[in-house]
Amino acid sequence: MTTSNSTPRADGFFMPAEWATHSQTWMVWPERPDNWRLGGKPAQTAFSAVAKAIARFEPVTVCVNAGQYANARARLDHGNIRVLEISSDDAWVRDTGPTFVSNAQGEVRGVDWAFNAWGGFDGGLYAPWNRDDQVACKILEIERCQRYRTTDFVLEGGSIHVDGEGTLLTTEECLLNRNRNPHLDRSEIESVLREHLAIDCVIWLPNGLFNDETDGHIDNFCCFVRPGEVLLAWTDEPHNPNYPRCQAALQVLENATDARGRRLTIHKMPIPGPLHATAAECAGVDLVPGSQARSPEVRLAGSYVNFLIVNGGIIAPCFDDPMDAVAESILTRLFPEHQVVMVPGREILLGGGNIHCITQQQPAPQGR
Amino acid sequence: MTTSNSTPRADGFFMPAEWATHSQTWMVWPERPDNWRLGGKPAQTAFSAVAKAIARFEPVTVCVNAGQYANARARLDHGNIRVLEISSDDAWVRDTGPTFVSNAQGEVRGVDWAFNAWGGFDGGLYAPWNRDDQVACKILEIERCQRYRTTDFVLEGGSIHVDGEGTLLTTEECLLNRNRNPHLDRSEIESVLREHLAIDCVIWLPNGLFNDETDGHIDNFCCFVRPGEVLLAWTDEPHNPNYPRCQAALQVLENATDARGRRLTIHKMPIPGPLHATAAECAGVDLVPGSQARSPEVRLAGSYVNFLIVNGGIIAPCFDDPMDAVAESILTRLFPEHQVVMVPGREILLGGGNIHCITQQQPAPQGR
Repeated sequence: MTTSNSTPRADGFFMPAEWATHSQTWMVWPERPDNWRLGGKPAQTAFSAVAKAIARFEPVTVCVNAGQYANARARLDHGNIRVLEISSDDAWVRDTGPTFVSNAQGEVRGVDWAFNAWGGFDGGLYAPWNRDDQVACKILEIERCQRYRTTDFVLEGGSIHVDGEGTLLTTEECLLNRNRNPHLDRSEIESVLREHLAIDCVIWLPNGLFNDETDGHIDNFCCFVRPGEVLLAWTDEPHNPNYPRCQAALQVLENATDARGRRLTIHKMPIPGPLHATAAECAGVDLVPGSQARSPEVRLAGSYVNFLIVNGGIIAPCFDDPMDAVAESILTRLFPEHQVVMVPGREILLGGGNIHCITQQQPAPQGR
Repeated sequence: MTTSNSTPRADGFFMPAEWATHSQTWMVWPERPDNWRLGGKPAQTAFSAVAKAIARFEPVTVCVNAGQYANARARLDHGNIRVLEISSDDAWVRDTGPTFVSNAQGEVRGVDWAFNAWGGFDGGLYAPWNRDDQVACKILEIERCQRYRTTDFVLEGGSIHVDGEGTLLTTEECLLNRNRNPHLDRSEIESVLREHLAIDCVIWLPNGLFNDETDGHIDNFCCFVRPGEVLLAWTDEPHNPNYPRCQAALQVLENATDARGRRLTIHKMPIPGPLHATAAECAGVDLVPGSQARSPEVRLAGSYVNFLIVNGGIIAPCFDDPMDAVAESILTRLFPEHQVVMVPGREILLGGGNIHCITQQQPAPQGR
């Protein structure tokens, strides 16, 4: 594998939008018992359902630690799902995998951001995270993709969304958090993003969703549905802790102009719940100092925005919640050329994220 | 990954000769301390030299257990070498990897033979071997190759050689050994080989080289150099324990007719040595009941025939032996269109094999 000393932008590469055609989607098999209840078995069932839903539309590769290989291989019994050994600390490939970039000549490379488990020893979710930090490199090596590595720049893929036309969406809560890149200010962070993703405009929402363990990843709160149009998690209830976050985000979005000079069309997506883990669910998680504690008191950061766009499909979480049908109809309306597939997301949410967090698309070779 | 219920021959696939163009060569990183002295470090140096020699001619993929990943990646610092995590029990991918087969339409698939560590609990070299038995399947899955699995037929790739034109070379000592397939007789074994490799003629040498731990693998004793021509390890010294083995093999080869009706041209390759491990070398190996004991008394089964043909190159072992130069000149004469590269093979020999045993070629898509 070759690691470049250049940047994607300098070499003519950019990050395609999620709706650009994929060659495959990557996932990582969940198992760590201090994050996933009951030895990870309910989560493995949920991840398997997600993998099989995606596999209806495009190939899936699932990375698994050696000890779980046989079990994962047996449960992922689908001709379009490949299972590989890659060591990991947990299963959030959106954040540990590479951000793929593409050029006009049809080559695909990857950006391997430094990873510190969502904040390192200042609010991070577990330690150590060394195996997670190597996941992107190993994926790129399997695919024989050239690699860009930002040794001194921490980023998770879930903290950014792009429209493929020069605009990036993120949150100040995460990217300006002192536990990521305290040595860089806002303009320096924008500069790294410009160089590595070939974007020209950053839209900064103040916060992500309430209680999001990732310090407010954008992918649990707001996303592009096409250039010039965004979908924002939304509540009209003033007592919902997300109310001020939604209002503040709306204000930014209403006043934003994207890289092509467009004003944004803003769609709203209801927030499910309130959702809480049960005492029994929390009791199924190993107690490990330094890992994220689980409590029925904590409102879960459930969100329908945490979906994945695949080739011809939308893979979105449902929560056995009254809002499920509303979410499905909104997605169906916003993506008339995609088939919307709702997959139970509660077990993934209990671990701290959802479908977008546990997947990473690899674009097919494409021009801009 | 798809496992076929058919056979390669029925589906139009055959095993190409080793000299057919490769897409890459596979290797596995050595580490087990009851086989490789001094924690495997000298062997890792030797394997790295082999990988880099091959990488001059074609891509190499080296599979490594998770715990050795970082070290292997650092030592295999070559742009044409890919390093992947695959769990294994030891490093003999010739025997644990798939036997690749090809069809006229340019598709490549693989045969995943059952593996029992060269004899299971009746003379096998270590236990357990479950991870080694999964190596072929994992390699095929990485390459998205369809798989044929012979659940009830044990075979190691090092126990066969083919000419790509319908003839297979093997030894009775290995393939008729009761510790491989005691439920099958000679004709039934030939039938499995015919169906899985699309060969029509089996040439049976009685034995392999003296003291070969594998029960006489052909690849340490005799190989094809092109259709109709073989290279046989040879000694003219009656007191050499290989003398009767060479004579018996010569008699078979002189009387053989291949699948195309040709008589064989027989080239001879001197046997180096006698070579023995030193007491210090033996002392560097962990003592584990059930694993192969090492002793300076035992004559090592060193052989120059244990080389690999790659795209435009011959990667052959040397032993700091007076015969090294003779071997190099024979190979140079026999392969006038290949560049012969001699790589130190003593550390590999101490572990029980040589360059052919630790490599597995993957043919490029090709017609017959």
